[in-house]
Amino acid sequence: MTLEAVRYRRGSLQILNQLLLPQRSLYLHISSVRDGWRAIREMQVRGAPAIAIVGSLSLAVELHGGKPRDKEGLATFALESLDYLVTARPTAVNMARAARELSDFVASEVKRPDSTAESFKENLISRIEAMLEKDISDNRSIGSHGAKHILSAAKTEKVIILTHCNTGSLATAGYGTALGVIRSLWSMGRLEHVYCTETRPYNQGARLTAYELVHEKIPATLIADSMVSMAMKEKGISAVVVGADRIVANGDTANKIGTYQLAIAARHHGIPFYVAGPSTSCDPALESGEQIVIEERPGEELTDVNGVRLAAPGIGVWNPAFDVTPHGLITAGIITEFGVHDPRELRKVLAEKACFKR
Amino acid sequence: MTLEAVRYRRGSLQILNQLLLPQRSLYLHISSVRDGWRAIREMQVRGAPAIAIVGSLSLAVELHGGKPRDKEGLATFALESLDYLVTARPTAVNMARAARELSDFVASEVKRPDSTAESFKENLISRIEAMLEKDISDNRSIGSHGAKHILSAAKTEKVIILTHCNTGSLATAGYGTALGVIRSLWSMGRLEHVYCTETRPYNQGARLTAYELVHEKIPATLIADSMVSMAMKEKGISAVVVGADRIVANGDTANKIGTYQLAIAARHHGIPFYVAGPSTSCDPALESGEQIVIEERPGEELTDVNGVRLAAPGIGVWNPAFDVTPHGLITAGIITEFGVHDPRELRKVLAEKACFKR
Repeated sequence: MTLEAVRYRRGSLQILNQLLLPQRSLYLHISSVRDGWRAIREMQVRGAPAIAIVGSLSLAVELHGGKPRDKEGLATFALESLDYLVTARPTAVNMARAARELSDFVASEVKRPDSTAESFKENLISRIEAMLEKDISDNRSIGSHGAKHILSAAKTEKVIILTHCNTGSLATAGYGTALGVIRSLWSMGRLEHVYCTETRPYNQGARLTAYELVHEKIPATLIADSMVSMAMKEKGISAVVVGADRIVANGDTANKIGTYQLAIAARHHGIPFYVAGPSTSCDPALESGEQIVIEERPGEELTDVNGVRLAAPGIGVWNPAFDVTPHGLITAGIITEFGVHDPRELRKVLAEKACFKR
Repeated sequence: MTLEAVRYRRGSLQILNQLLLPQRSLYLHISSVRDGWRAIREMQVRGAPAIAIVGSLSLAVELHGGKPRDKEGLATFALESLDYLVTARPTAVNMARAARELSDFVASEVKRPDSTAESFKENLISRIEAMLEKDISDNRSIGSHGAKHILSAAKTEKVIILTHCNTGSLATAGYGTALGVIRSLWSMGRLEHVYCTETRPYNQGARLTAYELVHEKIPATLIADSMVSMAMKEKGISAVVVGADRIVANGDTANKIGTYQLAIAARHHGIPFYVAGPSTSCDPALESGEQIVIEERPGEELTDVNGVRLAAPGIGVWNPAFDVTPHGLITAGIITEFGVHDPRELRKVLAEKACFKR
């Protein structure tokens, strides 16, 4: 059965607590905006698209089960909640975008003369539920576009894919972005093997991607981040597919630390390098990757494992959470729900698809 | 005070137990060949040159304190001990080379008509002690040659060096190879900063190199292996210096897994890449790196930390301990005790220095 990281039906939200994975698969009940904020802040849910979905759904469940309010009271509550949810983890663009879209929706709904408290609440919940549906269907489109593109370039019946970090059901509303491409290849019977990096220092690859691959029974091998180049040289990697935390106007992409190095190694070995992400991960307000502010996280993530000190006491630490891969190294393309794009054409595609009319 | 990983005086050998570092600095008494073998096998001592020195010194202390034997008995004991020591960890060439040299010495000494059991023992112990002295003085030469070469190419008064794995006092008889270069730069007052990788999966960088750098009060920062390229882009790295497990005739170099990827990243960023190792780490019997057999180690090194499972159960693992950096990526040179050599000239240099007359 496909892994369900987010279990939602109207009025009820459960998420798989990622802090306990892979040792324990325990669902966490989210019944309020406060619960949603805490789950994001404490990284019980992570991955830019998943954060936005869980944050927004936490508002939907609190709206559904919350105390009666009049229309204006509901609107104020919704707007304040959205502002609050954005503060849980500021780097990922997706929660901010979702909050902006929903805030606009709230503003226009509340002005409609025919709307009542009841219809306003119903429409806002439906709007959030539509985001969940769209996220999953967008991921399926990404998977399908990416798989077809990889296969059209491959010289073999089956392909071998290398990926980094976690971009699967655990990072999105479901299915996944880069891991969605891998799922699509697998369901087509065209996937031979997957190599996933452990993804230091937070080990999302070893803990989460490996968990998803084992769950789906996809043949897969875990390697250290430092083994990528040797794997590229010796293991017949057909393509590298990674996710994206933020893709800016010129195609430069911020993603989990180590992505930039993977892209350099892929180019050295002549292996196609793809970035996969929904158009909601695109941020055309920024012109180039140099404008992206990179979150630096506590050194303990690197020096300690499960609370046990590993590194020599007294050593300095640098722990950037993301790096920027310049568009020139994204040799095979950026995969969105619209197709596979040359990074230099991304701006045009997004404009055409009117993602950014606002 | 300089870190003493090997404490030797005639009849007594203590080594810093590297399995307990960096949490505890505990010396282990080695009083027999059996003790030496076990310390190597269990990785209480590691690093190719250190293995050879500790193995050979374990024979010296057992010869010194062991039971009385006649000359032939001593020779047989020495030869059998050397064969046995080579079996402790077969990949590193240094112990095998030391065993071959000492076996030759034994064979010629035992034939000398004027030698007695006493003089034979004395000469063999002195021969082993000379190896210890030479290893340290060779490392100091490597440090000096490397430092001068880096500074001659640098445009700044002080340089910033990136290194990988552990190549210091803990990996050699003392001082270190790549870390010896760093020590030399530091003692010259020309070192601004060191970046050391944690070196997954065995974390020699985080545990041992960081320990040595903190001990010497050298300004240093620990990074994950995946952060190397971002550091190269943003931190003004002047040069990369790494050690070598085996350097073959054409200059191809086997070293700790991740070295190959570092070399690719260094070339991408136009940063000089050095390999540092004594001529005893050279193996001109092999023509190219493709002939080097790479040790694959247990997957648990990658999936578990301090006995705690980190990775998802059921995932496959690939764990090569070393990789091969082709000579073309060793852009700045191979540093030996003789100087800094273009990899393509290594063969000639070694022949001139008559290291391999045999």
